[in-house]
Amino acid sequence: MKKLINQVDSIVDEMLNGMVDAYPNYVKRLAGLEVLVRANAPQPKVALVSGGGSGHEPAHGGYVGKGMLDGAVAGAVFTSPTPDQVYEAIKAVDGGKGVLLVIKNYTGDVMNFEMAADMAADDGIKVEKVVVADDVAVENSTWTTGRRGIAGTIFVHKIAGAAAEAGADLADVKRVAEKVIANVRSMGMAIDACTVPAAGKPSFELADDEIEIGIGIHGEPGTHREKISSVNEISDKLLAKIFAENIYNSGDEVAVMVNGMGGTPLMELLVANKHVKEVLASKNIKVAKTLVGNYMTSLDMAGFSITLLKLDDELKKLLNAPADTPAFVQF
Amino acid sequence: MKKLINQVDSIVDEMLNGMVDAYPNYVKRLAGLEVLVRANAPQPKVALVSGGGSGHEPAHGGYVGKGMLDGAVAGAVFTSPTPDQVYEAIKAVDGGKGVLLVIKNYTGDVMNFEMAADMAADDGIKVEKVVVADDVAVENSTWTTGRRGIAGTIFVHKIAGAAAEAGADLADVKRVAEKVIANVRSMGMAIDACTVPAAGKPSFELADDEIEIGIGIHGEPGTHREKISSVNEISDKLLAKIFAENIYNSGDEVAVMVNGMGGTPLMELLVANKHVKEVLASKNIKVAKTLVGNYMTSLDMAGFSITLLKLDDELKKLLNAPADTPAFVQF
Repeated sequence: MKKLINQVDSIVDEMLNGMVDAYPNYVKRLAGLEVLVRANAPQPKVALVSGGGSGHEPAHGGYVGKGMLDGAVAGAVFTSPTPDQVYEAIKAVDGGKGVLLVIKNYTGDVMNFEMAADMAADDGIKVEKVVVADDVAVENSTWTTGRRGIAGTIFVHKIAGAAAEAGADLADVKRVAEKVIANVRSMGMAIDACTVPAAGKPSFELADDEIEIGIGIHGEPGTHREKISSVNEISDKLLAKIFAENIYNSGDEVAVMVNGMGGTPLMELLVANKHVKEVLASKNIKVAKTLVGNYMTSLDMAGFSITLLKLDDELKKLLNAPADTPAFVQF
Repeated sequence: MKKLINQVDSIVDEMLNGMVDAYPNYVKRLAGLEVLVRANAPQPKVALVSGGGSGHEPAHGGYVGKGMLDGAVAGAVFTSPTPDQVYEAIKAVDGGKGVLLVIKNYTGDVMNFEMAADMAADDGIKVEKVVVADDVAVENSTWTTGRRGIAGTIFVHKIAGAAAEAGADLADVKRVAEKVIANVRSMGMAIDACTVPAAGKPSFELADDEIEIGIGIHGEPGTHREKISSVNEISDKLLAKIFAENIYNSGDEVAVMVNGMGGTPLMELLVANKHVKEVLASKNIKVAKTLVGNYMTSLDMAGFSITLLKLDDELKKLLNAPADTPAFVQF
């Protein structure tokens, strides 16, 4: 295994400190915990907490800041954070107006975030949760009941975060988050698997002419393997599954994310984006905003996912609101 | 060769269109050319033009926008853009106050940008140039006389761009750019080579326990190979060469860039950054700003470079000035 690390056991700890070292104006680490919170004191607003296993950087610590998250909890690589860590995050960020937990749909994450919510509720903190399940590839997986939560989660952070920043109450921030979740779908593929440091070998093996369609973000295999084809053809396949949801129709306006899995050059993501835009134009779907880059990664996996979010006026306004975090800044 | 592309010959064209499709509020493409310029009309200020071979995304088109570049010229992958393309970029962005060319030190780039400058000067456009040569790894290389220009170039874009945005005249913007160049040094390494699409195979081969120290950003080999060690030890070696320049001393304030080469997970870059910060602290060097991510890449190469920039009050103020481009946004 070739990785730029020191010891397998210390990766998450060092990564979190490396993020605080890089962005001290944005984030601080709760002492003794794998939790990053906004560098300033809790805000007098609804707070957002997300998190999950590590290995998805910049998710989620990179999205802690103005207009997005207030806290991010990091588990071991591809492993849910424990309830006590999530509980400490909730307590640290609550400014009295309550906390919304943004959970990606994995069995461990859902269970541990729910336990933490119960613990915080016992303390009198108002806590609500939403579960993101945007991945259309599979209905259940190794690690989920129901669909997995993947890159579409970033749109929940951005839009619900903007609502909270604008002063919405907890019920309203949750309503907006649920609206994003109802309108966001994603699907991904890989040309090469990732290597979990503790495992020391790739999570699956692909032949030189093979790709894996429908991968998640934890090295789990996808729906099937096939011969590699052009990125246009691959994008068409991912988009076909997304369009089969019957959410995105002629005349609609959408946000697009072409998300790299960690080992994919930006050049290739931009080439994919060109075709995604063409396909949407051919369906008379207008693109109001596009994100291209590494937003929700899977260690060193080479591949990408496409996410579509149908917008209405409310979502569009919140999506375009300012944000200032280590990994996402917008005037 | 496994890549997310359509045809080798169309990659740059599709990539540029994919960038315009993603960021139409920031960039537009000059018709029939491999040139991106700011989406709005030429500004009444000194204009900055950079560029070089493609494969370094987001450099350089991703840095076109407010407070950085006005135009970026893209050659074929790892190949200098032709003089006529640079000439068209200069003409398109000149707002009457002159144009500064920011050139990375490669023989082809220097020659072609200089020819373009001469052509534009014949038209009566004021053109100046600076050449970035921040890579301390080698004194000459396959493609350069003198040191190579690598990731430190982004600091030139940012700081000279801020000076231009603030209304400095051409001589002053050039002076500031030269000051950055005098104070910025970088060095990189790879754990895996990149694959140039037209070549179809990796530009060099490394054994499973080998790394290459001192690589450039065009797949050219570095100074030597060695057994892989911890990222702390590797960082120490890169920093030792940078410190040997005798630029960075106790009491100084610096900006740091830990730059991914395209195929490196952000997690690993953050781990490296933690150690870089520790080493600087041990030398009583203060870090005023840190950038961690893929700023100047080499296709799918796995590896990273470290850049230090010594700051004075002027450089610090310009570094912290607002910027708004596809790949770099700062309030």
